[in-house]
Amino acid sequence: MLCASICTIGDEILIGQVTDTNSGNIARALEEAGIHVRSMISVGDSKEAIEDALHRELERSSIVITTGGLGPTKDDITKAVLARFSGSKGYREDPGQLEMVHKILRGRGLDVLPINLAQAQVPEKAEVIVNRLGTAPIMVFRSLLGKSTLYALPGVPHEAVGAIPAVLEDILAHFKPGSIIHRNIMVYGMAESALSEKIAPWEDALPANMHLAYLPNTLTGIRLRLSSYGGDEKSLEAQLEALKEMLGELVYASEDSTLEAAVGKLLKERGETVSAAESCTGGEIAHLFTSVSGSSAYFLGSVTSYAVTVKEKVLGVPAVVIRDNGVVSSEVAAAMAEGVRRLTGSTYSVATTGLADKDGDGQNPGGTVWIGVSGPRGTRTVKYCYKNDRARNIERFAASALNFLRLYIENRI
Amino acid sequence: MLCASICTIGDEILIGQVTDTNSGNIARALEEAGIHVRSMISVGDSKEAIEDALHRELERSSIVITTGGLGPTKDDITKAVLARFSGSKGYREDPGQLEMVHKILRGRGLDVLPINLAQAQVPEKAEVIVNRLGTAPIMVFRSLLGKSTLYALPGVPHEAVGAIPAVLEDILAHFKPGSIIHRNIMVYGMAESALSEKIAPWEDALPANMHLAYLPNTLTGIRLRLSSYGGDEKSLEAQLEALKEMLGELVYASEDSTLEAAVGKLLKERGETVSAAESCTGGEIAHLFTSVSGSSAYFLGSVTSYAVTVKEKVLGVPAVVIRDNGVVSSEVAAAMAEGVRRLTGSTYSVATTGLADKDGDGQNPGGTVWIGVSGPRGTRTVKYCYKNDRARNIERFAASALNFLRLYIENRI
Repeated sequence: MLCASICTIGDEILIGQVTDTNSGNIARALEEAGIHVRSMISVGDSKEAIEDALHRELERSSIVITTGGLGPTKDDITKAVLARFSGSKGYREDPGQLEMVHKILRGRGLDVLPINLAQAQVPEKAEVIVNRLGTAPIMVFRSLLGKSTLYALPGVPHEAVGAIPAVLEDILAHFKPGSIIHRNIMVYGMAESALSEKIAPWEDALPANMHLAYLPNTLTGIRLRLSSYGGDEKSLEAQLEALKEMLGELVYASEDSTLEAAVGKLLKERGETVSAAESCTGGEIAHLFTSVSGSSAYFLGSVTSYAVTVKEKVLGVPAVVIRDNGVVSSEVAAAMAEGVRRLTGSTYSVATTGLADKDGDGQNPGGTVWIGVSGPRGTRTVKYCYKNDRARNIERFAASALNFLRLYIENRI
Repeated sequence: MLCASICTIGDEILIGQVTDTNSGNIARALEEAGIHVRSMISVGDSKEAIEDALHRELERSSIVITTGGLGPTKDDITKAVLARFSGSKGYREDPGQLEMVHKILRGRGLDVLPINLAQAQVPEKAEVIVNRLGTAPIMVFRSLLGKSTLYALPGVPHEAVGAIPAVLEDILAHFKPGSIIHRNIMVYGMAESALSEKIAPWEDALPANMHLAYLPNTLTGIRLRLSSYGGDEKSLEAQLEALKEMLGELVYASEDSTLEAAVGKLLKERGETVSAAESCTGGEIAHLFTSVSGSSAYFLGSVTSYAVTVKEKVLGVPAVVIRDNGVVSSEVAAAMAEGVRRLTGSTYSVATTGLADKDGDGQNPGGTVWIGVSGPRGTRTVKYCYKNDRARNIERFAASALNFLRLYIENRI
């Protein structure tokens, strides 16, 4: 099996000020290409720590990918460490990257400073893949410890992601990966342990080369990933169909997806539209809808009615409904959904009103949300109560609202 | 220096399906307590990989914290590996965690299944810290390899975060950390390399025990972190003041913060309010505002006007303004900002209209955004053009809009 290690370099990760998303993005691409990621490691901007990690990973994996430490500022030392580590006698200027440095800075209307020009200097033993998104070159060092290849990528997330296709191309030109097939289904509305009990007989009967993983995530529910090592696609698909059959309406997508993308797909297929009225979710539902490319085809708009006056004046929720039932109520959720549907003329609408913080309002405990969905078949509401912090409650409210909307569109409620 | 390693366990991280946020959260807490994080490593759910990583990290660090692999499902094997690794002869039932398993499942209205009860079984050599947020216990193994302590935390992010205070308390009862002081300032509106050139003379003259790190992030601009190793707080603060003086209006906060929190703080101090009208940012600005606890004091609401009819009907943007100038224009941004301010009665308002995707609309290239801010001193607009993918463009649009609003409130534009 062809193995790779990913090594992120930077103090900012080790002290927890920045979350490392590069490793995940690189890992996803490697796995899809059939390359097994053996480990990921993060170390700080120190010569000893970087060399120690490189030794450890180059001994164990044929491919090591580093990100970070290539910036122009004084705290970035990866290039110097790699120069030494690769036995480079000196530096050379890379004409391709030099041209790109000029082009990028010109495009941003900035002067080219000496600190920028230094970015095009690379250790003599490095091959260069030009980085079109930033000034730091992507460097390739071959035959380290006599056997392994190291790719040094910039740490800036969109530059690291942008470097992946060229790095993969180089890997596939030099190595031969094995075959792993992964398939995902997305499930919402059941706890992990209950789900596990439900499918235990099926899971126990899986062939030895197949493996099921549970990947819970607030926003997407649970992703079930079925993997086949060296097996054929047909048997994998057959097992997947059996699993989907068992889970019924809990399944909202047959591939790696999100609730907002799944709902969007449904709406697009039907040529229908949606709008949202948000109180406690404060724009999160609109943000989720519009994070999907092409969402302007079905998402008309939304109103975030944080203040009561906005609920009354913009959404037309009658003051008496709020007075009689309280802001966090089935009646207000329904009136908000109906109001925004009227306002935008959408086929469906979804609304939330609740308490995202831990504190209750005297009538409802913190973490309570009323969700309303309105459409051609009338209005439905549902109440959930979660016990998390503000950020997580907002995420769960939004996910539950999208799932409730999905069930309505699918004619299940 | 007291050193720690963090080890996350789980196939889902190695294949890039889940981003590891636990390591960052744990690292942040350790650093604040003066414990240096030496490295972070992620390995899969395999006995060999876990044992290899534990050996490597326990040799190098006095403290190793693992997360993950403690779930009730078949793919989770961390507990079995730790039982063997610690030389435990068998398992015992932990009464505290058993009680918690019953309590948690009862609270969720679920039956207690055998698979849940097994969660309260721990290796004989493990001490237990009860996990109040989930069924998997937090386990402590002392004197591994004769010298180091291992804390095994659950992988579910909010459970891992919830475990940190108790783990820190245990660490501080058994170890004595050194002193590191960090201070942050937040900067928006200048590229990293230009910033570096601007402050180079000051940075070069820093005492040897102080270190500056650049932590760029789309949403927050650049975080500058000044660290002092074993030094006094007073000299650190003096250096920080000098740095802030140099950077002027680029600085939007004097602590680790975000643009939305900084704007919220300004509004709260002044007893003023804000609303938003969003087209291309699709709810992101509202989401950022409302992600701050207590934001209902100043954030009245917003309209996401994705469809042109919503811009006209809800925000009152005259059809002729759209026809004459196009949707992506200074005039429409201004009319949207004025419309939502009129609708909500807020002190200020902010509006965006632009193209988040890479494709242009014939008149404007993809990545173009017009931002409008309206308030007691009239309306201002500004245009930016970014060259990123959809998700990143939306983030930058929202951050630029918040910064433009900040400059208006601070009377700088």
